Amino acid sequence: MTTRPTPPPGEFLYLLAGDEDDFTNACADLLPVDIAESLNDLPVEAAVKVAARLPFHIAVEVFDEPSLERRDELVELLPDEVAIPLIQAMSADQQVRLFRSLKEADRARLLHVLDAPTRDQLRLLMSYPPQSAGGLMTTEFVSVPESWNARQVRQYISQVGDAKETVYAIYVLAEKTQKLLRVLSLREVVIADPETLVMEIGEGRKPISTRPFTDREEVARIISKYNLLAIPVLDDGGHVLGIVTVDDVIDALISEQTEDVQKMGGMEALDEPYMQIALGSMVKKRAGWLCALFLGEMLTATAMGHFEHEIEKAVVLAVFLPLIISSGGNSGSQATSLIIRAMALKEVTLIDWWRVAAREFPAGLALGTILGVIGFLRIALWQSLGLYDYGAHHWLVGLTVGISLIGVVLFGSLAGSMLPFVLRRIGFDPASASAPFVATLVDVTGLIIYFSVALMILRPGG
Amino acid sequence: MTTRPTPPPGEFLYLLAGDEDDFTNACADLLPVDIAESLNDLPVEAAVKVAARLPFHIAVEVFDEPSLERRDELVELLPDEVAIPLIQAMSADQQVRLFRSLKEADRARLLHVLDAPTRDQLRLLMSYPPQSAGGLMTTEFVSVPESWNARQVRQYISQVGDAKETVYAIYVLAEKTQKLLRVLSLREVVIADPETLVMEIGEGRKPISTRPFTDREEVARIISKYNLLAIPVLDDGGHVLGIVTVDDVIDALISEQTEDVQKMGGMEALDEPYMQIALGSMVKKRAGWLCALFLGEMLTATAMGHFEHEIEKAVVLAVFLPLIISSGGNSGSQATSLIIRAMALKEVTLIDWWRVAAREFPAGLALGTILGVIGFLRIALWQSLGLYDYGAHHWLVGLTVGISLIGVVLFGSLAGSMLPFVLRRIGFDPASASAPFVATLVDVTGLIIYFSVALMILRPGG
Repeated sequence: MTTRPTPPPGEFLYLLAGDEDDFTNACADLLPVDIAESLNDLPVEAAVKVAARLPFHIAVEVFDEPSLERRDELVELLPDEVAIPLIQAMSADQQVRLFRSLKEADRARLLHVLDAPTRDQLRLLMSYPPQSAGGLMTTEFVSVPESWNARQVRQYISQVGDAKETVYAIYVLAEKTQKLLRVLSLREVVIADPETLVMEIGEGRKPISTRPFTDREEVARIISKYNLLAIPVLDDGGHVLGIVTVDDVIDALISEQTEDVQKMGGMEALDEPYMQIALGSMVKKRAGWLCALFLGEMLTATAMGHFEHEIEKAVVLAVFLPLIISSGGNSGSQATSLIIRAMALKEVTLIDWWRVAAREFPAGLALGTILGVIGFLRIALWQSLGLYDYGAHHWLVGLTVGISLIGVVLFGSLAGSMLPFVLRRIGFDPASASAPFVATLVDVTGLIIYFSVALMILRPGG
Repeated sequence: MTTRPTPPPGEFLYLLAGDEDDFTNACADLLPVDIAESLNDLPVEAAVKVAARLPFHIAVEVFDEPSLERRDELVELLPDEVAIPLIQAMSADQQVRLFRSLKEADRARLLHVLDAPTRDQLRLLMSYPPQSAGGLMTTEFVSVPESWNARQVRQYISQVGDAKETVYAIYVLAEKTQKLLRVLSLREVVIADPETLVMEIGEGRKPISTRPFTDREEVARIISKYNLLAIPVLDDGGHVLGIVTVDDVIDALISEQTEDVQKMGGMEALDEPYMQIALGSMVKKRAGWLCALFLGEMLTATAMGHFEHEIEKAVVLAVFLPLIISSGGNSGSQATSLIIRAMALKEVTLIDWWRVAAREFPAGLALGTILGVIGFLRIALWQSLGLYDYGAHHWLVGLTVGISLIGVVLFGSLAGSMLPFVLRRIGFDPASASAPFVATLVDVTGLIIYFSVALMILRPGG
């Protein structure tokens, strides 16, 4: 009972062979999202055949599902007499997503055959960036004039409710200017006395709204803060361009976070499910960052070259090198992920950089001291237990490792926490400050710190 | 207009000095969430004074805000004659959150003075884990008997609507058994003809529901898949225990993802905003993992010890060590973050491990070959340009580096992609497979691969 199982993909092919009524009945029992997922599992040619036989009102709901994959291919393969009414009936936000994914030629051709109002609206919506409020919004919302009363609104909704993306938020517009005056919830309208004027309903607060170019993450933050079911998108004059609904925001939140996790793993966002993306595209998306990191990390070879002479004199130094530079990377990665998340949640903004640095300095010092003491004790213990011989100067080796760890962890924490600020300042996504990126930054510095400490402590040569 | 600015915290203190009416008027103009955020910025003693003077219906809304911090302290400091009616009036899910955060003694005392139905309900809800559907749900939902018609439902909602968490989903129960038969949306009820029986309204599909012990991530996935505004939580007998609403799910999604990002950064989840957590607690939460990783990374020192002799003979090998082991860590971190996210989105489940391995093998081989070729060319170029002298066997050094990179990147991709499966299999959160964790795993293996290749190629000694 928890969730409904998706019907096996074969079922549709089987039903196609049966008569029209069987097929229609089977469809009526399924939710559009489940039909969409079954279509995803079919080869595209079979999916087109099924889509073409779906009753029209169900086909519209299926094509309105964000989870329907290859929507562009399906539309291209469907005969125009099926495809065009289907597109016209889709909701505006899903039309936009479809048209964005169509090939240039198909887009032009299909735009041309749509009716004029749909076409104009589509052109307007496509002019906004896909990850902005304008790119997410739909234009099917319920608006009523300020002179109406609750009874009129209820009557109106019972007539037009089916065609609107949501009826749970009702937008009251000024009669002359068409500016947004008030937002009512359907709950308030249902509870109100039938003769109450809309301007008297509810608490009469100024509506919470957003602008078309606001980023989808910010829209999600406002919707979640104020527990809204939809937010109006206003132009400079205060007119409602469209609304963004809570379900689009959840989808946006989930894709935003997939992107962030992948960026934090040190790669481009895949934009496709892992099991579905072609191997070649995946390697391409991973190779870019991997090569960039590799080239950055080559600096360690250059730096090491300068210390070759010291390593020759005290090979024991090389033994602790991976341990020390990785500790810098790890502390940097902790600091970075903390700050990236705090930035995403707006707990921290650009101007807070020095407050963050003021926290990371003592934190890094404390963490470095803990690791430094453990590192020193490890060397002392192994030496005294006879597990390994670090040579005549083993106390000095221990001291070098301990002091280097303090320096490296402190530097890692500071560099890791400041990197997201630098990235945001120069216009990049702070989530690109991946653990591998931080580690690469910190590795070179880490080994310079280590060998410099060694030179000071072990001079004149171990 | 975009969002409302939070009033400066001082404003409330100023208003406290003014007369009662001024204060009440100022509050009426603000949204509860904004009042809550202003209270967060005040010292707790001042916040209590303001809270005690808020008109009762506003105070209830403010205390119902998940973003109100120190709710436990405020309730403890408020006089009981204010606190108790306030708690009684809060919504059930927020009461649970409040009681979970109260000190043991206060919890027992306050439970004792609440009225019996509230107390029993609270005890039931607190028996579910906080991150489950049962822990998130509220018991204030609209249920109607199967014999009613649309008019009766509309009338009922206009009477009780104010007291319910949401009225947008209406639950139709069987008259005798009280089992859930149908879920209607308020939209369907408003659109329906007044005399239509509730069982005739809508499309009559089986309701989508969840169980009390289902994890909040799974609840979020169902709500997002089916675009629900609320989901009923059913017991074994099919009775509605409560409902989880979409706004709670958004909050849950956001905290779940904060946890994941922090775990992926190689640390425990902070559970508090970065700028607010005490420095000591933060160091404690970071030190645990950092020390664990440090101890794991100590294996590199042990492994290096075994190769000290080889390094002595060819110090040039040490020069490329950081480059090679970091490449393994980077490719592992990419693979891990891809799989963690694919698992969170249910694109990949436990049984898919071999399908993932079958993708990561060629991907890792391709990526390793790309880096191997770059590494070899780098050495050849530096040598021929006279930038660095890698000794008489420089071609063999180049070959060693190139071949090791293929092995290390391949191993990194495989290990990184399999780690989340292993963690989930043994009952841990796959998001704990942080980039630092993977890097630590891969570093030891990476250097063993590197020195083994060197031994084969450069034998009998460089």
